[in-house]
Amino acid sequence: MPADLLSAIVTILAVLLYFYMSIRVGQMREKHHIKAPATSGHEEFDRAFRVQMNTLEALPVFLPLLWLATVYFHAYTWLPAALGLVWVAGRVLYMTSYMADPDKRGVGFGIAAIAQLGLLIVAIVGIVQCWPGA
Amino acid sequence: MPADLLSAIVTILAVLLYFYMSIRVGQMREKHHIKAPATSGHEEFDRAFRVQMNTLEALPVFLPLLWLATVYFHAYTWLPAALGLVWVAGRVLYMTSYMADPDKRGVGFGIAAIAQLGLLIVAIVGIVQCWPGA
Amino acid sequence: MPADLLSAIVTILAVLLYFYMSIRVGQMREKHHIKAPATSGHEEFDRAFRVQMNTLEALPVFLPLLWLATVYFHAYTWLPAALGLVWVAGRVLYMTSYMADPDKRGVGFGIAAIAQLGLLIVAIVGIVQCWPGA
Repeated sequence: MPADLLSAIVTILAVLLYFYMSIRVGQMREKHHIKAPATSGHEEFDRAFRVQMNTLEALPVFLPLLWLATVYFHAYTWLPAALGLVWVAGRVLYMTSYMADPDKRGVGFGIAAIAQLGLLIVAIVGIVQCWPGA
Repeated sequence: MPADLLSAIVTILAVLLYFYMSIRVGQMREKHHIKAPATSGHEEFDRAFRVQMNTLEALPVFLPLLWLATVYFHAYTWLPAALGLVWVAGRVLYMTSYMADPDKRGVGFGIAAIAQLGLLIVAIVGIVQCWPGA
Repeated sequence: MPADLLSAIVTILAVLLYFYMSIRVGQMREKHHIKAPATSGHEEFDRAFRVQMNTLEALPVFLPLLWLATVYFHAYTWLPAALGLVWVAGRVLYMTSYMADPDKRGVGFGIAAIAQLGLLIVAIVGIVQCWPGA
């Protein structure tokens, strides 16, 4: 199975999850009658908005690391996509637990953070291994 | 015409539009004397800020889908770039109508959303077609 | 030295800097007891938050331009990565000066903006040069 196709699927999953979070914000905006351009006004809206924003803040780290790892790491070609899948799962848990209780968002956040750290290490190892003469 | 060059141009256009939105926020900040780190304080600034933020929130969905579709979809190579161009046009309309009246932002937002959905479908079809043995 | 490896390293550096900014926001959240989902409450937290957000807002411009320039510009293959390094340095200065005094954030911001403009020009030149028949 080509590594890039696996990472392409993980990218689609991450994008779909983020898309779902954005739709939730729109729904909460309507439900609690929070008129644009306001971005605050009800606890439930605020939670949905922070879930989306925090994931948005994580995407420019996650996606570049996923693809750098996919392109440059050749020892275990499935590893970047596997770590990416763990990231997506962590973010799903983060979303559901944050909506239930902001204080419980830590576990999902931590799982995604560890997967991200794994991708960083794999990307760096891959770049070093691809270095001319290495 | 190579498909990747067309998508490269659309990426440049999307980035330029977003860049223009960011400059507008800076101008509104000066015009209405909203001192950093504040991000609110005048209706016109708030609208410009929300236009930029909402487009920022859309970019990590749009750009990965545009490039996944460009790389994996080979039936009509011009299609991803064409959908990308529609997205950019929808976002221009979104910006101008939001600045005029936040309640009228729906049409431009919808056009961009439909283009994005099209890119998602084209990307998935492309990945399935590239699957080994498919 | 292959140009893509240099840009891969610059991408890692940009991602690490952004990651560090995010951690700072989390630290300020704890230090000043600002409970999620709130994103305001103390001047020092607000500065750290704006530094991270402004860099987040810049990443979807910076990373696509860096990679478009890297892929399409072949005259001086080291140039995109060099401009990317200037961008990272400008953003480090932006962070340190913003935290010290928001009014002094201009120089670092300007350096990063000029590097970004350089990448835009290099990317466009590259795309034009790769155009079939050009």
